[in-house]
Amino acid sequence: MPISANRPTQPVLAIVGVGLIGGSFAAALRQAGATSRVLGVGRNAASLQRACQLGLIDDVVTLEQAADQADIILIATPIGVVGKVLSVLGPLLRTDTLLTDACSTKTDVVATAREALGERIAQFVPGHPIAGAEQTGPEAASADLYRGRNTILTPLPDNAVVDVMRIRRLWEACGARVLTMEPDAHDTVMASVSHLPHFLSSVYMWQVASAHDSTVRMALAGSGFRDFTRIAAGSPEVWRDIFLSNRDAVLEELQQVKQALAQAEQALVAEDGQALQDFLERAALARRL
Amino acid sequence: MPISANRPTQPVLAIVGVGLIGGSFAAALRQAGATSRVLGVGRNAASLQRACQLGLIDDVVTLEQAADQADIILIATPIGVVGKVLSVLGPLLRTDTLLTDACSTKTDVVATAREALGERIAQFVPGHPIAGAEQTGPEAASADLYRGRNTILTPLPDNAVVDVMRIRRLWEACGARVLTMEPDAHDTVMASVSHLPHFLSSVYMWQVASAHDSTVRMALAGSGFRDFTRIAAGSPEVWRDIFLSNRDAVLEELQQVKQALAQAEQALVAEDGQALQDFLERAALARRL
Repeated sequence: MPISANRPTQPVLAIVGVGLIGGSFAAALRQAGATSRVLGVGRNAASLQRACQLGLIDDVVTLEQAADQADIILIATPIGVVGKVLSVLGPLLRTDTLLTDACSTKTDVVATAREALGERIAQFVPGHPIAGAEQTGPEAASADLYRGRNTILTPLPDNAVVDVMRIRRLWEACGARVLTMEPDAHDTVMASVSHLPHFLSSVYMWQVASAHDSTVRMALAGSGFRDFTRIAAGSPEVWRDIFLSNRDAVLEELQQVKQALAQAEQALVAEDGQALQDFLERAALARRL
Repeated sequence: MPISANRPTQPVLAIVGVGLIGGSFAAALRQAGATSRVLGVGRNAASLQRACQLGLIDDVVTLEQAADQADIILIATPIGVVGKVLSVLGPLLRTDTLLTDACSTKTDVVATAREALGERIAQFVPGHPIAGAEQTGPEAASADLYRGRNTILTPLPDNAVVDVMRIRRLWEACGARVLTMEPDAHDTVMASVSHLPHFLSSVYMWQVASAHDSTVRMALAGSGFRDFTRIAAGSPEVWRDIFLSNRDAVLEELQQVKQALAQAEQALVAEDGQALQDFLERAALARRL
């Protein structure tokens, strides 16, 4: 363990999972001068090599080395991997190291963290940057990804206020607006405005791609189709884990959407122009706000 | 009626409905030098005035004046208005005037045209530019809207080849790629790649807007939400007419999407990670093509 007096003023950052999300966090903090060194940990050696070449990270290290050397560790892996990562890190963590994450669900991740970290749970400040892109991997990372976007922290009762503040400052250094919420409130809102759109867009895209004449269909698709399906290009592994992790809230929200769909379908079956116009107007007005 | 020898080489164009679609056609043909004069017809005097100020049209005229003066008439109104417009134009049309339209459905519009135009149906070459934007009105019009986009013509057996060619050349002058299809094949494909996305996006947006906590939801929505709902901001009247006009194909396609949705939901209920990943991968791969 390094002698405390020798440690540089700016923290050493470790990113576990140097893709779009983790890589952009690293790039933004480097640009802001808010880190002295960035370590990268990951499952894919070629991807980590690329992250080095792109200047997102200084060194490729193991989880064990990250636990030893980092002041701040961001976990930006698919949710399904978080438990394993925390189980390795937990016993090795320095007492002054802070852990945070960028996962899209919070209740499940917090439960996983409590199990993996035990008494060290106070060192974990859960977070979720509301930003993304359909591209994946370190090549897609950008120092500007979080600029003007919201990052939600869901602090635990166990966290020290000063630790939550440190994590908040890092996201602010990335240009993000930081909000705090309860984990379950976060998950309910995200089921509606993030997970459902992805589920619907992917189901729709899958249905079109499965049609016998999918080539003709896609050749004649316009900009509306492209907008509507852009999110369906996102990482299948990341989104599989999000849906499984926030299953109950997603299924609950899906019932609401299906009810609305049945109502709109009924209006069309009945050729009820007024009912159709009413729901289209309500949607258009809300969207134009 | 003007003496034929005095008529300028480039055709006089009349646009019925000078909004995004009609206004962009006018702007593109003016820019290409493919029209000598553009007349505008519409229901909304203020909007027509605005189209004049923007230089999209030279004069505001009545349908009767358009029938008398125009060589080419584009109908770019909501579908529900087409029958009325054609009924007025029909009896007044010069025999050398060509009619075309920009409506998003073709079977229904062709039937309407046959009824309204009777023996003059040969003067109507049906068309549909696959381009749009969530903005509406003449302010949204752009000479570049059709550049690189597809325009589908669904010529009638009654049309003279030379007339279809004239309409084709106009769309090509707008920078569009022109394809021809049968009206019902057009409507089936559009139900899938245009009408369904709009229906789903609008239903979803309506459901979110109707939630008791819609303000919080929308405040925390990210770029995925914005992409997915962009089309829901489109004109309620235009889209009501499209859904009613292509009702059978839209309802048929909706059954397919609902089946796919039920399958994906079942995978989530069963926490079947492999099935979820399979459909997400299929969607992502298709979208990334």
